[in-house]
Amino acid sequence: MADQYAQSGDGTRPTGIPAIRWDEPPEGPVLVLLDQTRLPAEEVELVCTDAPALVEAIRVLAVRGAPLLGIAGAYGVALAAVRGFDVEDAAEALEGARPTAVNLAVGVRRARAAHRAELGRTGDQKRAAEAALAAARALHREDAEASSRMAAHGLALLDELLPGGGHRVLTHCNTGALVSGGEGTAFAVALAAHRVGRLRRLWVDETRPLLQGARLTAYEAARSGMAYTLLTDNAAGSLFAAGEVDAVLVGADRIAADGSVANKVGTYPLAVLARYHHVPFIVVAPLTTVDVDTPDGASIEVEQRAGHEVTEITAPQVPRAGAEAGGGIAVAPLGTQAYNPAFDVTPPELVTAIVTEEGAVSPVTADALAELCDRSRQVTI
Amino acid sequence: MADQYAQSGDGTRPTGIPAIRWDEPPEGPVLVLLDQTRLPAEEVELVCTDAPALVEAIRVLAVRGAPLLGIAGAYGVALAAVRGFDVEDAAEALEGARPTAVNLAVGVRRARAAHRAELGRTGDQKRAAEAALAAARALHREDAEASSRMAAHGLALLDELLPGGGHRVLTHCNTGALVSGGEGTAFAVALAAHRVGRLRRLWVDETRPLLQGARLTAYEAARSGMAYTLLTDNAAGSLFAAGEVDAVLVGADRIAADGSVANKVGTYPLAVLARYHHVPFIVVAPLTTVDVDTPDGASIEVEQRAGHEVTEITAPQVPRAGAEAGGGIAVAPLGTQAYNPAFDVTPPELVTAIVTEEGAVSPVTADALAELCDRSRQVTI
Repeated sequence: MADQYAQSGDGTRPTGIPAIRWDEPPEGPVLVLLDQTRLPAEEVELVCTDAPALVEAIRVLAVRGAPLLGIAGAYGVALAAVRGFDVEDAAEALEGARPTAVNLAVGVRRARAAHRAELGRTGDQKRAAEAALAAARALHREDAEASSRMAAHGLALLDELLPGGGHRVLTHCNTGALVSGGEGTAFAVALAAHRVGRLRRLWVDETRPLLQGARLTAYEAARSGMAYTLLTDNAAGSLFAAGEVDAVLVGADRIAADGSVANKVGTYPLAVLARYHHVPFIVVAPLTTVDVDTPDGASIEVEQRAGHEVTEITAPQVPRAGAEAGGGIAVAPLGTQAYNPAFDVTPPELVTAIVTEEGAVSPVTADALAELCDRSRQVTI
Repeated sequence: MADQYAQSGDGTRPTGIPAIRWDEPPEGPVLVLLDQTRLPAEEVELVCTDAPALVEAIRVLAVRGAPLLGIAGAYGVALAAVRGFDVEDAAEALEGARPTAVNLAVGVRRARAAHRAELGRTGDQKRAAEAALAAARALHREDAEASSRMAAHGLALLDELLPGGGHRVLTHCNTGALVSGGEGTAFAVALAAHRVGRLRRLWVDETRPLLQGARLTAYEAARSGMAYTLLTDNAAGSLFAAGEVDAVLVGADRIAADGSVANKVGTYPLAVLARYHHVPFIVVAPLTTVDVDTPDGASIEVEQRAGHEVTEITAPQVPRAGAEAGGGIAVAPLGTQAYNPAFDVTPPELVTAIVTEEGAVSPVTADALAELCDRSRQVTI
C-alpha cells in the first residue's frame, strides 16, 4: 500500500536544505522528504504518494525533529485528502506513527480540523482537501517565520552580549533546517551571524550516542559554508578553558514554567561549564516548547532509551551484526548495562537567556516567561 | 624476523587479568601479552618470542598504558638477552616503537643498564641475561606494589571523605590492570572498595573517541564482578544533578609541579561538574607521573590527535572502509575538520586530592606535592 520512492539529489542545491516540500508533478501531488537516515553520506529524497508511506518514513526516522514532524503530519493529512484516500484513517495512522511526539499530533489535528470544517460547511471533497493543504502550508509558513524571528532576536542578543563580533559559538545536537519548516532554532541564530559575517567559528559537539552533531549539524554547517569544527562532547571543556568559546547556543525539547530546560543529553554539562567560565548560555526555542503545565525541572520526566545505543555502534554505513540487541556492533562486553537518558534538565539559574520568536527572556524567571507566553497569545488572538 | 603467535584464553581465569607475563615453556622463554586490540570481544594472548614481535605488538597497541609499556620494554630487552639476540639492537628498536612514551624508554634503559653492568663485571652473557630479566621483574613487581599502595591510600581517603560507605564512583578512561603491572591506579581504588563491600556502583564513562571506558574499563569491571554501568561522557552531568555520584576517581598522564593534572580528554569537565556539585574529585597516580620540570598546567603541551578518530567510526569488528583517512567508516561529512586533543588539563584548585603510592596530597599545592616527592626519594635512597 505504502508508495514511496527515492530520488538522488543533484548535490548542487544552492539555497538551504529542504527537509520537506510539497510538490505537484504531472503524476499527482507528492510530499518529498530529505531522507535523514542517509545523511551525511548521501542526499536522497524520499517521495511519499500516500499517508502509509509517510508513516513508514516517520517510523524509520527519515523525517524527525519536533516542528518538522508537525508539518509532515499536516501535509500527510492533506496528501490523503488530495489523493482521495480516507482522511480520518490517514490521520489516525499518522498520529500513531510516533505516539510521544506531541507536535506530530498537533499538526495532524490542525489539517484534519480544517478538512472537517470545510467538508461540513460545503460537502465538497475537493474544497475540503484544499483546506487541509492550506492548513499544512500555513503551519509550514508559521514555523519558518518563527525560525526567522528567533534568528533575528538571537543575533541581536549575541551582538549585545558580545559587542566585539567574531563570535565563536558552541552548539549541541541538531537544531537547523533538518528539524524545522524554516532554518531551525539555535542553528538558525548561528546561521544569521554567519550571514552578516559575525560568526568566526561554529564548534559542533558530535552528540553521543546518536551523533546528530557529527552527522547532521556538520552537514548543515558544511552546506552553508560556515567555518565549523567537530569535537567529541567531552572535548568542550578544554575549549572553554582555552577561552575559545564566546557563547553556547542550544535548542530545547521542553521548557518548564520556571524556565528549566529539557534538551538533548549533554546540554546540562555545557551549561555548568559555561557558568564556570562566565560564557553566555543561550537557549533558542519557539514558545510552543514552553509547557506551562510542567511547573519545574523536577517535574520533567526524563526518557531512558535503550542501552544498545551506547553499548553498540550503529551507523547507516555500518553493516548490521543482527545478533545484538540493536543490530549494531558491540563495543562493550555483552551484558553491559547502560545509563542512556535521552535528555537532561538545565535549571533556569544556569541559562543566560531563552530566545523565542516573540523575543528573549533574560534573566530567566517564571514571571518573565509567563509574560512572554501571554503576549504571544494576545498576538495570536 | 618477528615471531609472535596468538593463543585463545580459556575465559575462566578466576583472578585478575594478566596484561603481561613472562613464561618459560619447554620451547624457551616468551613474553605473553593480552591483545588489547581484540577486547572486549575476544581474549586472545599474543606470545612474543623476540623483540621485533614485541615492537610490532607495541605499535599496533596490543599492549598500551604508560606503566605497562615500561614493563614490556624491560622484558623485551631481557627476552633478547635470554634468547641470545643482540641486546643493544633490541633495546634501540623497542625504544623507537613509540617514541613519545617516556615509560617505555625508562623500562628499556633499566634492563639494558643491568645487562651492561653484569656483562662488564663478569663478561658472562648468561648472567647478564639473568640480570636483565631480574631488572624487568623488579620493575614489574615495583609497579604492582605501587598499585596496591595507591589502592590502600585511595580507599582510606574515600572512607574518610564518605564515611557512610556504599560509594558510587564515576571514572573515566581505562586505569586498571590493563595499563599496569598491578591493578592500576584509579580503577585499583574502586576495586579495593569493591573487595571490602563498599563500592555500590562504578559509573563508567565510555571515553570518546577511542572508547577505552566502554571497551576496556567495562571489561575489567565485568571480570571483577563489580556493579557497573556504562554511560556516554555527556550523560555524567545528569548523574551529578541527580546526586548519583559520590566521588570521581581518575588517573593522570602527567602532573605538573603545581598539581595541574593532564589526563584523558573529558577529565576536566568532570572536575568542573564535581566542583559544582560538591563531589570529591580524586586523582590516583604514581609519583613517577609527577613532572617537576613542568611548572604548571599552562606549560603542559597538549597533543592533538588525528581528526579521523572523531569523524570516522573504527572498532576491531567494524570492517575497514579503506578509502577514508583512518580506514574507518565516515560519520561526518567528508572534509570535516575535528578538534581532537588527546588530553585536557585540570587545575589543582579543582582537585580534591592526589593519591600516590606514598600517600595522598590534599589540598593539592606545589609545596605538598614537592614534599611527597622528596619523601619518596629518601625512601628510595
